[in-house]
Amino acid sequence: MIYMDNVAGTKPDKRVVEKMLPFISEKYGNPSAHFYPLGRESFEAIEEARGHVAALINAKPDNIIFTSCGTESNNLAIKGVANNPEYKDKKHIIISEIEHYSVQNVALKLTNYGYEVTKLKVDNTGLVNPQDLKKSIRKDTLLVSIMHANPEIGTIQDIEELGKVCKEAGVIFHVDAVASCGHVEVDVEKFQCDLLSIASQNFYGPRGAAALYIRDGVRITPLFDGGFQEKGYRSGSENVAAIVGMGEAARIAKEEMAEYSKKMIKLRQKLWDGLAKMFDFLHFTGHPEKRLPGHVSFWIEYIEGESLLMWYSLKGVCAASGSACSSNILAEDEEELEASHVLTAVGVPNDICAGSLTFSMSKYIEEKDVDYVLEITPGIVNRLCEMSPYFNKK
Amino acid sequence: MIYMDNVAGTKPDKRVVEKMLPFISEKYGNPSAHFYPLGRESFEAIEEARGHVAALINAKPDNIIFTSCGTESNNLAIKGVANNPEYKDKKHIIISEIEHYSVQNVALKLTNYGYEVTKLKVDNTGLVNPQDLKKSIRKDTLLVSIMHANPEIGTIQDIEELGKVCKEAGVIFHVDAVASCGHVEVDVEKFQCDLLSIASQNFYGPRGAAALYIRDGVRITPLFDGGFQEKGYRSGSENVAAIVGMGEAARIAKEEMAEYSKKMIKLRQKLWDGLAKMFDFLHFTGHPEKRLPGHVSFWIEYIEGESLLMWYSLKGVCAASGSACSSNILAEDEEELEASHVLTAVGVPNDICAGSLTFSMSKYIEEKDVDYVLEITPGIVNRLCEMSPYFNKK
Repeated sequence: MIYMDNVAGTKPDKRVVEKMLPFISEKYGNPSAHFYPLGRESFEAIEEARGHVAALINAKPDNIIFTSCGTESNNLAIKGVANNPEYKDKKHIIISEIEHYSVQNVALKLTNYGYEVTKLKVDNTGLVNPQDLKKSIRKDTLLVSIMHANPEIGTIQDIEELGKVCKEAGVIFHVDAVASCGHVEVDVEKFQCDLLSIASQNFYGPRGAAALYIRDGVRITPLFDGGFQEKGYRSGSENVAAIVGMGEAARIAKEEMAEYSKKMIKLRQKLWDGLAKMFDFLHFTGHPEKRLPGHVSFWIEYIEGESLLMWYSLKGVCAASGSACSSNILAEDEEELEASHVLTAVGVPNDICAGSLTFSMSKYIEEKDVDYVLEITPGIVNRLCEMSPYFNKK
Repeated sequence: MIYMDNVAGTKPDKRVVEKMLPFISEKYGNPSAHFYPLGRESFEAIEEARGHVAALINAKPDNIIFTSCGTESNNLAIKGVANNPEYKDKKHIIISEIEHYSVQNVALKLTNYGYEVTKLKVDNTGLVNPQDLKKSIRKDTLLVSIMHANPEIGTIQDIEELGKVCKEAGVIFHVDAVASCGHVEVDVEKFQCDLLSIASQNFYGPRGAAALYIRDGVRITPLFDGGFQEKGYRSGSENVAAIVGMGEAARIAKEEMAEYSKKMIKLRQKLWDGLAKMFDFLHFTGHPEKRLPGHVSFWIEYIEGESLLMWYSLKGVCAASGSACSSNILAEDEEELEASHVLTAVGVPNDICAGSLTFSMSKYIEEKDVDYVLEITPGIVNRLCEMSPYFNKK
């Protein structure tokens, strides 16, 4: 099996699993139970993890709040600011057209509560123009939320430029760095962001742990009311094992990212070039250079993405069409089946949006894996073209 | 080490850990990625777990929503109903005085949004009187939230009686069964409840998974906006390993609970009787019979609970004073150090509330462990009495 759907979650590093194991079995203490060693041990393990996570994004440990997933971090960031009395007079929010559902749908929800949302257009490589952002900021703008990298098309924003605009305007800047953290540099100081979301499962850590960076002075109202965990920003019993795993994943990423990302960029280029040579009716999506290291995304005229996925899967290759989060396996009616808002935003014709494909590699991918994908692709595409009623046989 | 702080979290059953292991290493697929086996496998594992969790509380699998912790389940239940437009005209909520922080503080928060909260008194054994509940229900009562068992004093409510009152009045009934589920029978039909919270870590499952039961017809607005996981009730990437572990823990609890609870009740009685004989200045809290199987809680005149805890810990026994969730290890000022609202509610004098102690056993506890606790107790208590300025030396 060749796993190239790493935007949907990565395989945890073996060292991460090793570090977690004691905390799902014999080290089961509640971190708040500080009167006995078993509890203190859990508490200390969380604080160690917090240090590693902070270091990965150039933050102070005190500014890291652990949550259960990227969606929770994004919700906590945006609703947390919107619900805080400190900011109650500001009712304008700016996002881009290609945000993750957990940003887009939060913004949509807030429109029910008197908020106005501006969705910035992106160019056909998926980039937000900092000048557009500047122009869209108003006196009542509360918050700008723009993702660092898009998991579907791979594009990495000029986030430092966007941060500069927000900083100059004195507007709170939230960055969804779930897809990028652990693959390219994420630095809250360089980004000049006030809030930043990351998720463990996207950089070889376990599912069940994520974090929100909150800059000093930014006021957040928690989503959960309850006990006093995470300084009250996120009450509820901590998932110690997952947090410990996330810490170890962060430590490893900080140390080894430069090296594995370099390798992944090389393999990306090989896959990209190989595909480009094969078909003139294959169109890449996203930015050709400003993109996630192991990420290649495209659509093919005449061919449905779901058929492509199925055939790749039969040949042992795991890929994605759209994002896993928009998967409609549970869709209850046809209306829930819709074209990806991300692909529509970068100008892919609506009727073939379902036809897009995303290969996202991990650090475990080797050159032979890319060779294999290139080897099986002509067979799959040619067969599907032959079956397609739209294909103009040449 | 003798671990008697199981209300703060239990040691996961070995079979639970076994079942989880593949899902924190090689089975890392995203359950929404249904085009390849790795994703489908995660999806199916979650559905299998949902079946086990449903069976444990006599519910249909479709009515189970997985969350990250008991606090999230309680927040989702109460805020979910309060935020739903269906119920927007009902602004009265009823809870008891001894609810967990994640119910009490949610209710408190809602008072900022126009809700009125009635807190039902409990008698000095911790029981809510069904007649009091009946009298407190008004035309605009939205929801009643009462816990099944209290982790601090062990009392188990006459929940079927309370459910009957709610049912007759046509009021939504939420039960926080986090402390009881897996220890005594929890049955959503017998309870006649509409919403019920349970947490994996409280019945030999892992941290990081919990569930909310939602009866057909009850309308809930999600806390998170995002993708379409858990039918949209709880978006965000699923913590597959923890959910799988929770499922296995539920399966085991359903099968073995009757047996281990019987053993724990016997050991509880032994500990209770032994302590009762030792000191006439020791006072038990909670109900003598209607209580959690392995749960013994008390306070001792003249002695601070924290000193007791410390000494038990030095002798290798883990116990609790108040709940782990009210732990003030992170308290930033003296004001955050306050008497337990639960102990105050059952009439324990305010100045010695910090003096209470809770032993909560697990199914792993043996008679020799109880013997050991009884053996070391006189030494600890006598030494602390001698040190106490309030102790009237006899």
